[in-house]
Amino acid sequence: MRRLKALISYDGTNFSGYQVQPNARTIQCEVEAVLQKMHKGEVIRIHASGRTDAGVHAVGQVIHFDSPLVIDEKAWKKALNALLPDDIRILDISYVSSDFHARFSAVKKEYRYRVLKTADHDVFRRNYVFHMSHPLNIEAVQKALAFLEGTHDFSAFCAANTEVIDKIRTIYKAEIVEDKDELVFRFIGSGFLYNMVRILVGTLLEVGQGKRKPEEMKAVIESKSRAEAGKTAPGQGLVLWKVFYE
Amino acid sequence: MRRLKALISYDGTNFSGYQVQPNARTIQCEVEAVLQKMHKGEVIRIHASGRTDAGVHAVGQVIHFDSPLVIDEKAWKKALNALLPDDIRILDISYVSSDFHARFSAVKKEYRYRVLKTADHDVFRRNYVFHMSHPLNIEAVQKALAFLEGTHDFSAFCAANTEVIDKIRTIYKAEIVEDKDELVFRFIGSGFLYNMVRILVGTLLEVGQGKRKPEEMKAVIESKSRAEAGKTAPGQGLVLWKVFYE
Repeated sequence: MRRLKALISYDGTNFSGYQVQPNARTIQCEVEAVLQKMHKGEVIRIHASGRTDAGVHAVGQVIHFDSPLVIDEKAWKKALNALLPDDIRILDISYVSSDFHARFSAVKKEYRYRVLKTADHDVFRRNYVFHMSHPLNIEAVQKALAFLEGTHDFSAFCAANTEVIDKIRTIYKAEIVEDKDELVFRFIGSGFLYNMVRILVGTLLEVGQGKRKPEEMKAVIESKSRAEAGKTAPGQGLVLWKVFYE
Repeated sequence: MRRLKALISYDGTNFSGYQVQPNARTIQCEVEAVLQKMHKGEVIRIHASGRTDAGVHAVGQVIHFDSPLVIDEKAWKKALNALLPDDIRILDISYVSSDFHARFSAVKKEYRYRVLKTADHDVFRRNYVFHMSHPLNIEAVQKALAFLEGTHDFSAFCAANTEVIDKIRTIYKAEIVEDKDELVFRFIGSGFLYNMVRILVGTLLEVGQGKRKPEEMKAVIESKSRAEAGKTAPGQGLVLWKVFYE
């Protein structure tokens, strides 16, 4: 048995999220089905750096799994991509030490969130951005972002139905960048709670619309109450961009 | 009754093409269903500059229709976009003279065709490009493109099952442009036959791969035989970019 680490990309549009669920098309299901085929019916479990929700995309998700097959890395990539559906691609795959774990070895993650600011929506980006034609005050959003960097208890930005107990996370970078007709939020952190990026974006967009003052971010964090934060921004704008390992 | 001209955009991925067909989701069906709703059940026929095939996209398709409704242009756009599915958008709509005809008044059309030249396919562009990892000789393609400009009988580049008799068309511009990791073909012409752009691209890609010499394009045109041209490139790389009127 040797361990493999794979860098994978997926278009989340036609998936009910990453994790296996009954009667739903998920990324985990599709990848495990392909591995099972390659292993003559044997079930091979995959482990990801973390789940992604329905509609959420990945440019750089990382998974690992153990296999008894003896194939070189190029052949692994070719075989998997030949069998996978065209909305999941293996970008890279390599043998790693058996103590590597896609989730527990991760030290940082980067998520991006795309907002389309044109007057009309764009049919070609409808599954990849959140469309907001309302003008946004970028300076106010930047002020609000500054309150997020650092180590905080992010309970206020965590979906209520989570089982995680420790809600302290470190955000190393929280910024907004203009990219032509889009605004792109970038968050790099030690880890992110369930729905955290989407609730952060939803709250920051309320600041940008003038519904909240930038300074309120501090009070929202301190409240540790989900009710104090803004709406959860829709999943399709979110991309798991990169997972960092030592 | 007044005539309206609308500029529309659609993502062709989930459509069986433009034209009404039994038991198929088409752009014409969707737009006419919305117009029928707005006209309390009355059927309103729309007329496009031309059809597009299954999977083919439009950035600038033009349609016209006649309506007895008295609504201003802004309200028309808002009402239509509120009722249309999110893969069709009205970009502009205006009242025009009753002698305007989306198809017969058109004097030129521009189509673009996107080829992705990366080693791996990209999940986010799988419905919008033709992926070709084989390296292409761009200079050879450019030489071949030069044979296309001008007025020719394009029978060799027309799907065999067409009813059109006159196959003489003028191509004003036929070029290939590199755009980061993509190659984009641009064709501006007086009009295009059924599948013409896709057969042109399929043949040009064979030139780029060294399967044909650029000079062969002349002989292919002169043959007037579909069998002499290359394969029909897949629909998803094609976009109806712009329709020109006087």
